[in-house]
Amino acid sequence: MDRALQQARLAAERGEVPIGAVIVGPDGLVLAEAGNQTEADRDPTAHAEMLAIRAATSRLVASRLIGCDLHVTLEPCPMCAQAISFARIRRVYYGASDPKGGGIEHGPRIFNQPTCHHRPEVYPGIGEREAGDLLRAFFRDRR
Amino acid sequence: MDRALQQARLAAERGEVPIGAVIVGPDGLVLAEAGNQTEADRDPTAHAEMLAIRAATSRLVASRLIGCDLHVTLEPCPMCAQAISFARIRRVYYGASDPKGGGIEHGPRIFNQPTCHHRPEVYPGIGEREAGDLLRAFFRDRR
Repeated sequence: MDRALQQARLAAERGEVPIGAVIVGPDGLVLAEAGNQTEADRDPTAHAEMLAIRAATSRLVASRLIGCDLHVTLEPCPMCAQAISFARIRRVYYGASDPKGGGIEHGPRIFNQPTCHHRPEVYPGIGEREAGDLLRAFFRDRR
Repeated sequence: MDRALQQARLAAERGEVPIGAVIVGPDGLVLAEAGNQTEADRDPTAHAEMLAIRAATSRLVASRLIGCDLHVTLEPCPMCAQAISFARIRRVYYGASDPKGGGIEHGPRIFNQPTCHHRPEVYPGIGEREAGDLLRAFFRDRR
């Protein structure tokens, strides 16, 4: 999660909402990491998790990330949660909860849907304080 | 929808699940079109709608597709439905319904969630027969 937090910090320095994600392979090595890039790319789908999933599948030349784990600083949104399921990610560790935009323990609770075919193990609250501090500082400075 | 169906046919010829999407701008001209590319790209997020949204925002150099409409041959999944909401697409026209994987009238019904901040107008059943025929033929031939 330290590397995901570092990606979140780098995102903040670029003027992006500070969210970072890292994908770790079955061997414990980092496969891909990314920060939120929606502003720079002017792409509403360029969330850290989406970029990390695409980078990891591209690196493995495989469309499924069997045995891989995702570390992300904020509860994934419904779009990213569904992508995580499609990618067959094994475990999701996340920092801060997101009552307004989250899609795992909030909103549509994607992994609890009967039509969700792959449910990763989910571990919330990892690095929560640092992740939340980064987000709060970012939005405070923008006001 | 004819162009979306054509994109679906081209996807089938490439060995992809035949789904096509077209985004039309406020002026009525086609901004972007794409077919499903999950196999070729080995990318579980490379759904026709995601590719079309990314192409359209890239072309407009804008992260929101205000006043734009999406035509897609199959009911969008939860990932794509959330991306459609993020992109602020005005209207979604789709062909076949997808009880197993859809995210608009099935599963998490993304646009009905209280945490969904933008709800496009939705018009299902447009070109439904042709879209369904393409999908059925594709899966029949794969068996």
